[in-house]
Amino acid sequence: MTIEAMARGAKDAARRLAAVPTATKDAALEAMARGIEARRREILSANARDLARADADVAAGRMTKPLRKRLALDDRKMQGVVDGIRDVARLEDPTGRIEYEIEVDDGLILRRVRCPIGVLAVIFEARPEVVPQIASLALKSGNAAILKGGSEAAESNRAFHAAIVDALAQVPEFPAGAIQLLETREEIREILAFDAWIDLVIPRGSKALVRSIQEATRIPVLGHTDGICHVYLAASADPAKAMKVVLDAKLDYPAACNAMETLLVDSACAARILPPIAKALADAGVELRGCPRARAVVPPMAPASDADWDTEYLDLILSVRVVDGLDDAIDHIHRHGSAHTEAIVTEDPAEGEAFLARVDASGVYWNVSTRFADGYRYGLGAEVGISTNKTHARGPVGLEGLTIYKYVLRGAGHAAGDFGPGKRRFLHRRIR
Amino acid sequence: MTIEAMARGAKDAARRLAAVPTATKDAALEAMARGIEARRREILSANARDLARADADVAAGRMTKPLRKRLALDDRKMQGVVDGIRDVARLEDPTGRIEYEIEVDDGLILRRVRCPIGVLAVIFEARPEVVPQIASLALKSGNAAILKGGSEAAESNRAFHAAIVDALAQVPEFPAGAIQLLETREEIREILAFDAWIDLVIPRGSKALVRSIQEATRIPVLGHTDGICHVYLAASADPAKAMKVVLDAKLDYPAACNAMETLLVDSACAARILPPIAKALADAGVELRGCPRARAVVPPMAPASDADWDTEYLDLILSVRVVDGLDDAIDHIHRHGSAHTEAIVTEDPAEGEAFLARVDASGVYWNVSTRFADGYRYGLGAEVGISTNKTHARGPVGLEGLTIYKYVLRGAGHAAGDFGPGKRRFLHRRIR
Repeated sequence: MTIEAMARGAKDAARRLAAVPTATKDAALEAMARGIEARRREILSANARDLARADADVAAGRMTKPLRKRLALDDRKMQGVVDGIRDVARLEDPTGRIEYEIEVDDGLILRRVRCPIGVLAVIFEARPEVVPQIASLALKSGNAAILKGGSEAAESNRAFHAAIVDALAQVPEFPAGAIQLLETREEIREILAFDAWIDLVIPRGSKALVRSIQEATRIPVLGHTDGICHVYLAASADPAKAMKVVLDAKLDYPAACNAMETLLVDSACAARILPPIAKALADAGVELRGCPRARAVVPPMAPASDADWDTEYLDLILSVRVVDGLDDAIDHIHRHGSAHTEAIVTEDPAEGEAFLARVDASGVYWNVSTRFADGYRYGLGAEVGISTNKTHARGPVGLEGLTIYKYVLRGAGHAAGDFGPGKRRFLHRRIR
Repeated sequence: MTIEAMARGAKDAARRLAAVPTATKDAALEAMARGIEARRREILSANARDLARADADVAAGRMTKPLRKRLALDDRKMQGVVDGIRDVARLEDPTGRIEYEIEVDDGLILRRVRCPIGVLAVIFEARPEVVPQIASLALKSGNAAILKGGSEAAESNRAFHAAIVDALAQVPEFPAGAIQLLETREEIREILAFDAWIDLVIPRGSKALVRSIQEATRIPVLGHTDGICHVYLAASADPAKAMKVVLDAKLDYPAACNAMETLLVDSACAARILPPIAKALADAGVELRGCPRARAVVPPMAPASDADWDTEYLDLILSVRVVDGLDDAIDHIHRHGSAHTEAIVTEDPAEGEAFLARVDASGVYWNVSTRFADGYRYGLGAEVGISTNKTHARGPVGLEGLTIYKYVLRGAGHAAGDFGPGKRRFLHRRIR
């Protein structure tokens, strides 16, 4: 099958899927969960073959150990996959929801109704369990999906995909071609040209991957570039809350995009609040890199270079800067942040509210660790990814982010030419 | 000033504008309206200079007459501009609205709050009144805007822009640099590279313009490509409703993107319903181009070529095709339509509902003319444009389409590491 035929087939499937009732979609998800359970051993042996190749690659220095680790499936992960599909089945179907309804004229009723986007192209690396995870989110929201995983997980991805396709084929009314798998980079490059059939591209991976895809396509891209998150300790910060928020934001999971990379401290409280926090961070193995004023307060700190303020370490490193009040802190955040998640610690309500109102980021927090920026913690149920876009969906993206709306207008032979000066007037009466 | 400095300045302005209260934004709009009223004669003389150049261009065959007509301002249009700004001031401010609120844990409250997008780059052709129109929509929604109009309207655009900038400068608290004007194509090309500062590009013009911009930038583009809209007359269509809908959809304003370009008729009713409609259309000066089965029913019809089904005439031309039932009609619409606005005329409720559910378009209509696809008719108050995107905003885009949301989390020193198996559990209790 050509890539064009695949894209066209996915679009056909998406259009049929959009009219499939929730119960059928949930039945398909249950069939997926059972199909993967039934083929657990088959999938694990495919994964073992990927791992054997990976071990050779690690030995030859062609693959890193963390990548090899992300590739590995085991019984616990397989159970997580199956549970995850059933969790998605239990989530509310975001499609079909009437966002509002107005009476435009007698007998002319306009509704805005939530509906699927269409065809998603999802590009990811390493973890093969993303195949069933994205497939379940796409199906629940009524979208078709074309998946491209990392070549290092090729056999595992293929085994998951086969189990899913076979399971969906058992569900009557369920359109074929809804979940497709690409295997090569050339195929991805080709599919990015088909903007008539692909509606949204979701790259899950490095900033370089996201940018290269944004440059290669006219199709909208939902992605995540940097996560340079700040915590700002204001003059009135409570020392215990500051300690708690800072340690969690840096230490809970330093490799996450919502981990803190820079700590900002108001000059009015730096000498008082910074030393014990710096000590606790250093004791936990964090390397601190400070501006001159921060180093004056915490003498053993290494100096920060200009590049440090723009660096996402994803590691046990933290840059520390002393600033002069809220304006200076917000200015630093806007200049160096990535509009991901930004936090202030303060006991001054006016200052807290000003920070929340003025900081331009997908998440703005007051006395809370940046690590809460996550679909599960937000109560979205499941997460497609985190978006640093300023349009469509921002921050943690759940099922709703895979939908859009359409306008549904029911009338009785209404003509627009009957309205206007000296003619009929619109009612525009809100019904709901 | 360099283009980079302009873009950076717009971003600064946008960030300050996001925290400006509604009353101040409305005062700024009133100042704009008065400023434009006060400088009416100055703006009209600038327009007269554009028109003098345009007349020479028309005489030399370098400009079309319709373009020259779109360029012209007069007292009536100027009044419309001023009234339009005041109308926008009266619209509800979409920002600040709490979309939902949940209690994540004791004392940890998450809100999703509507906020401005940031900096809009709006590119348009000919009509200079777009400058105050877009400026008012951007300001009301809290966005900065960089505008680029057609070079043929350069003096008029400059005069409008000067009046707006001077008026906004009189409003205390209002950030400078919120509305900027570009003058050349090179400047646009340059600004499309600054994805750190420009958040959304809105091209209003030809499909070629929209596509060229989509290809030139990583920034999300909100645009409108084709408007190939269909009306499908089903077997049970009421002849009077069919006549009314078809005539309005084709004749009310043939040059509009929401005008009907192809009429589909079920073979079960074509012989009965098509001849009187074809006659009425022909009497109104519409050139009909039919498939062989349509021509068999209405003998004097010209044959349609394959290209006709994919053509947006924007003129008194209509392609006519006889199809075999709903599936065939929907298949034609999905194959040849542009997912803009699609209508069915039927007395069969099951068929009407099936059309509404299954057709993938921003507007799906039952017994209504496609001409209703318009922000004003939908009750949105004002229209930024019509979007054929499948993400962010679809169909007629009002003020809400210029906003996004941010997550606001207020806590008391909450740490993510305190939650998990054997630790605290999330409440996720919906407050509103």
